[in-house]
Amino acid sequence: MLIVMKTSATQQEVAAVVEFVETHDLRAHLSRGDERTVIGAIGDGRPVQREQFLHLAGVDRVVPISRPYKLASREFSPNDSSFPLDGVRIGEDPVVLIAGPCAVESRSQLLETAHAVREAGAHALRGGAYKPRTSPYSFQGLGEPGLELLAEAREQTGLPVVTEVMAPELVPLVVRYADVLQIGARNMQNYALLHAAGASQHPVLLKRGLMATIEELLMAAEYILSNGNRRVILCERGIRTFETSTRNTTDINAVPVLKSLTHLPVILDPSHSTGHWEYVSAVARAGIAAGADGLLVEVHPDPRAALSDGGQSLKPERFAELVTQVKAIAEAVGRSVAVKAEVV
Amino acid sequence: MLIVMKTSATQQEVAAVVEFVETHDLRAHLSRGDERTVIGAIGDGRPVQREQFLHLAGVDRVVPISRPYKLASREFSPNDSSFPLDGVRIGEDPVVLIAGPCAVESRSQLLETAHAVREAGAHALRGGAYKPRTSPYSFQGLGEPGLELLAEAREQTGLPVVTEVMAPELVPLVVRYADVLQIGARNMQNYALLHAAGASQHPVLLKRGLMATIEELLMAAEYILSNGNRRVILCERGIRTFETSTRNTTDINAVPVLKSLTHLPVILDPSHSTGHWEYVSAVARAGIAAGADGLLVEVHPDPRAALSDGGQSLKPERFAELVTQVKAIAEAVGRSVAVKAEVV
Amino acid sequence: MLIVMKTSATQQEVAAVVEFVETHDLRAHLSRGDERTVIGAIGDGRPVQREQFLHLAGVDRVVPISRPYKLASREFSPNDSSFPLDGVRIGEDPVVLIAGPCAVESRSQLLETAHAVREAGAHALRGGAYKPRTSPYSFQGLGEPGLELLAEAREQTGLPVVTEVMAPELVPLVVRYADVLQIGARNMQNYALLHAAGASQHPVLLKRGLMATIEELLMAAEYILSNGNRRVILCERGIRTFETSTRNTTDINAVPVLKSLTHLPVILDPSHSTGHWEYVSAVARAGIAAGADGLLVEVHPDPRAALSDGGQSLKPERFAELVTQVKAIAEAVGRSVAVKAEVV
Amino acid sequence: MLIVMKTSATQQEVAAVVEFVETHDLRAHLSRGDERTVIGAIGDGRPVQREQFLHLAGVDRVVPISRPYKLASREFSPNDSSFPLDGVRIGEDPVVLIAGPCAVESRSQLLETAHAVREAGAHALRGGAYKPRTSPYSFQGLGEPGLELLAEAREQTGLPVVTEVMAPELVPLVVRYADVLQIGARNMQNYALLHAAGASQHPVLLKRGLMATIEELLMAAEYILSNGNRRVILCERGIRTFETSTRNTTDINAVPVLKSLTHLPVILDPSHSTGHWEYVSAVARAGIAAGADGLLVEVHPDPRAALSDGGQSLKPERFAELVTQVKAIAEAVGRSVAVKAEVV
Repeated sequence: MLIVMKTSATQQEVAAVVEFVETHDLRAHLSRGDERTVIGAIGDGRPVQREQFLHLAGVDRVVPISRPYKLASREFSPNDSSFPLDGVRIGEDPVVLIAGPCAVESRSQLLETAHAVREAGAHALRGGAYKPRTSPYSFQGLGEPGLELLAEAREQTGLPVVTEVMAPELVPLVVRYADVLQIGARNMQNYALLHAAGASQHPVLLKRGLMATIEELLMAAEYILSNGNRRVILCERGIRTFETSTRNTTDINAVPVLKSLTHLPVILDPSHSTGHWEYVSAVARAGIAAGADGLLVEVHPDPRAALSDGGQSLKPERFAELVTQVKAIAEAVGRSVAVKAEVV
Repeated sequence: MLIVMKTSATQQEVAAVVEFVETHDLRAHLSRGDERTVIGAIGDGRPVQREQFLHLAGVDRVVPISRPYKLASREFSPNDSSFPLDGVRIGEDPVVLIAGPCAVESRSQLLETAHAVREAGAHALRGGAYKPRTSPYSFQGLGEPGLELLAEAREQTGLPVVTEVMAPELVPLVVRYADVLQIGARNMQNYALLHAAGASQHPVLLKRGLMATIEELLMAAEYILSNGNRRVILCERGIRTFETSTRNTTDINAVPVLKSLTHLPVILDPSHSTGHWEYVSAVARAGIAAGADGLLVEVHPDPRAALSDGGQSLKPERFAELVTQVKAIAEAVGRSVAVKAEVV
Repeated sequence: MLIVMKTSATQQEVAAVVEFVETHDLRAHLSRGDERTVIGAIGDGRPVQREQFLHLAGVDRVVPISRPYKLASREFSPNDSSFPLDGVRIGEDPVVLIAGPCAVESRSQLLETAHAVREAGAHALRGGAYKPRTSPYSFQGLGEPGLELLAEAREQTGLPVVTEVMAPELVPLVVRYADVLQIGARNMQNYALLHAAGASQHPVLLKRGLMATIEELLMAAEYILSNGNRRVILCERGIRTFETSTRNTTDINAVPVLKSLTHLPVILDPSHSTGHWEYVSAVARAGIAAGADGLLVEVHPDPRAALSDGGQSLKPERFAELVTQVKAIAEAVGRSVAVKAEVV
Repeated sequence: MLIVMKTSATQQEVAAVVEFVETHDLRAHLSRGDERTVIGAIGDGRPVQREQFLHLAGVDRVVPISRPYKLASREFSPNDSSFPLDGVRIGEDPVVLIAGPCAVESRSQLLETAHAVREAGAHALRGGAYKPRTSPYSFQGLGEPGLELLAEAREQTGLPVVTEVMAPELVPLVVRYADVLQIGARNMQNYALLHAAGASQHPVLLKRGLMATIEELLMAAEYILSNGNRRVILCERGIRTFETSTRNTTDINAVPVLKSLTHLPVILDPSHSTGHWEYVSAVARAGIAAGADGLLVEVHPDPRAALSDGGQSLKPERFAELVTQVKAIAEAVGRSVAVKAEVV
């Protein structure tokens, strides 16, 4: 880290900072500019809190130099990480499509959707049995019976299941039913949950918080990775901004930025990132064009009757059209849509 | 809720919306403007998802009319709620000061701080035994030994203890040591935790998420209140914006807005909302001037050595000065600083 | 507009609002819900200020129903607007590429770039002779000599010229040299400038302000359109958010949203919206995949020597690669890249 | 500035950066960390664009060290700047109150307001003759006849006049009538206007743009100051965030931050920063408590009839109450409310 001194800092103040650096087992390296002195603190700075320096006289600000994540970084692992998701691999050239309802509502709703998205070309089934809802009065999900329905849908369609887990104590239960644990946007910095998901050694789909920076997303992944669990998928799902004509603002920049900073697979959720079914396909195409490794799309057989997120769900026939569009875009960027190995 | 039709909507489309409203046990009320028709859906709209209407032909958008929170609203409870916090009451005219270190680091650090803030005039002690940290490599708190130190500090000083709980399964443990459970900004929408804290029937200090709207904060409070737990304190602690010269942007507007919308006590955390000790006092004064019922302030005997948030912690002597300033401001707005009943 | 009353509003208060509505030559239409009364104000509400109602007793809030823009709306003009830009048309199926340096720096720099982008397939040349700079100490552009160089570049390459105008009194001058007047993001709500550009009857490329909503962008276009000038191109160029890893956040949602709300052509500027050349191509592809009618791209023969925005400028050879990629994406969405009619 | 190299940067890449630094007449100073090399570029870096370095191989990012403003900084001028505003001084201990209608609407409306705010204790009169409006169909101000009415109000009340100027070519006209030129939020980066206002040598009240960082506000002030005009008042008026329950989010932190970074007077506009009259007084008190040198408040004799911003305007009697409250707060922070020298 670099400690930037005020222009008015005295020799004594500089010396005190140097001493403070050195008592933390770091080496100090002075750079005297025309206006200011900058002190580099060299060594493993992780035990030192940057902000501590703000109480030393003459210090203007502290600039971090190292990136705070290690295991998630491309520097740690230059090649793309990939891992199998049942019959396909995520993180390789072919893009992967995960689709299904926001919430598991009933056996018929789930199975109808599962078959429809399977037929349209999806590689995995999404669906929530536990639903984080802004209101305590809204439908909160079916709980374990919902997980059982997901297992049945997997059996019938061969699609691996992605489903959300909302509390650390539920991880052992959800792991028994899910192929991939989803950690939702609101829980991206729920550290107890990140630790539990990491310790489960189960694949994790980690959604970016709606006001999390890209660096914070990578730090959240680092919590999982530091438990020895290397199977993490990152998901951009829109951030919160001042714009109100869509539910969130899709941070499409995050796709190439993440692909540059990390080796982890990166997918896009165009349903939450727009909040309106009319815009889902356009933004889904944009995601693949920008380099995303896959999509997470909400599909419902009758969105007007959906118990949550109906406004942003596609009908199965529209999802099928989207798959066709995604194939064309994938080819345009030199990729393909994954072909699912048949379940024998 | 109101369903606003497109200017191009046909008679049939309007009729279909009316029918959809009525099949959900709501009454439809038509208002034909010069350009558009607006359909009011009257009755208990909570089981209906607003977004479902977006799939009906001719619908432009849906506007909520009722506020989604009930128990937290001033309409439900017109008078200010207040409750005892050991020797003082929070939510009444005298303002309440909660102070202490960001994290419990050691026995001496905590006890020294507790005595200092007690002497300066604080009414409660804050301090984290479990710390949510962006990095898995940062100090994560002392855990239960930290809770034990807090209990000891309470015994020595008579100050009730406010401390954070980060996971639902820790609620029973933390309740044994804490007078008030703190739910941190990153967990404001951790619904499992909100339920557990609500069910504990213990007082809860709920911090606004850095990405949460005022309405979402009230909805999070509603989760706690709907468990029958009425002792909830709301805390504005800064929101995330584009401005980078401070750690967060203090939403000072939130103070009068919350006081208008809810009967719950509202306090301000000027430490997190600025992130820099130099600005803490100015913003603390502003909070009381704007009508806050109290302050939550980070104080550390040696901020340069703090294991977290050192940059925003006040030294005890500065906190004492702040108390003097707060007294003057409280008087200027016709209030006072609470006088703590002596522990007999 | 709809006036939503408080749950506590009395009959008298409702009656007073109705009277206030009627004295403004609007009709009042009451809708009594279970909790609240909502009053619709029907008629031409434009002369009435919504906020005036906030001073009437019992009023909770006012909800606008009509869209505030008329001429820019798809309801006013259901078909896509298009107009010629020298040898091509903007706003039709073939997408249009506008490229060139951020600033005109010298004759050789401009001519080299103009020829290079022409050869790579660009349809128009961009380049600033007047530069809005955050710092008064930065290069502010060459002024009129820069305009002369742009005219020379047009003569040599046949590319129409897009260049920024920063003040109303400069419009007559810039119109003499430019084929399209650019209004920059910082001036999107410079109403004197919008009026002057509108009155010029010259084509205008209007960039979205970095903190302007989509509705405000359309209202700014309305200023130009209401001067009788129908040749307006809208440009998404990134908005300001909390994310700092890129210069701005590309609001890719804005592309389909704008295409849905307005008939005006919509283009994307991936250079400003990312701020880093490494991400420009990915986001440019995303823009076309999402439905944009064109791109505005910064190209510089030697970005290391650029006097402004060097970090986000592409070298000519990279721009040529981008054109190839854009062709593939355009085909994937059923469009093409415009073919420029030869200048005879 | 500091150039931070990638961890993978080679010796040759470092050498190329050093050479690039030196060819720009800067000195290069190397600091080799355990992971990365950091290169300090020492000397007057203003002619060099930071972003140019992003095209050099091996460069990770560039960190600015010097502040980009000079004349506005406290380092340039350690003592508070102040200057007379007719009978009072702005920028000294006594706080100054500027009040009046959003727009000049008629002779009676303006004179009634002017006398009322004078009586209540205001020191200057605000009122817009030229109004920046989002919609071209809204009232745009009376223009020069409005300026004449302001002059008449000044004559009758002795209050100096603060009024907005929206275009450079109007500066000479507005200067003839106004004591202080106001530059509105939307024009904060209208550089032609900043230059014209600076060149006029007339006092300028510069409002922060709703999207502008504190640093950008200071850079806008620098445009005025660099024209030799030292009489600049900075005004925080709320920034745009995701929160929608108020019109803007008052950045109360900006008050102490600005007082720390600059010597210029800093005032707060609680009317625009909240957008709702019910919250104006609370936020006005907060501003003075946080250290603002004054307030800019909208007052209208009949807000229900206001042609603009009625929702956020105070009635004269409420403004009088606010003045009483401000006096109490000013005293609580060791200041006073200015006493206006009588016009003889």
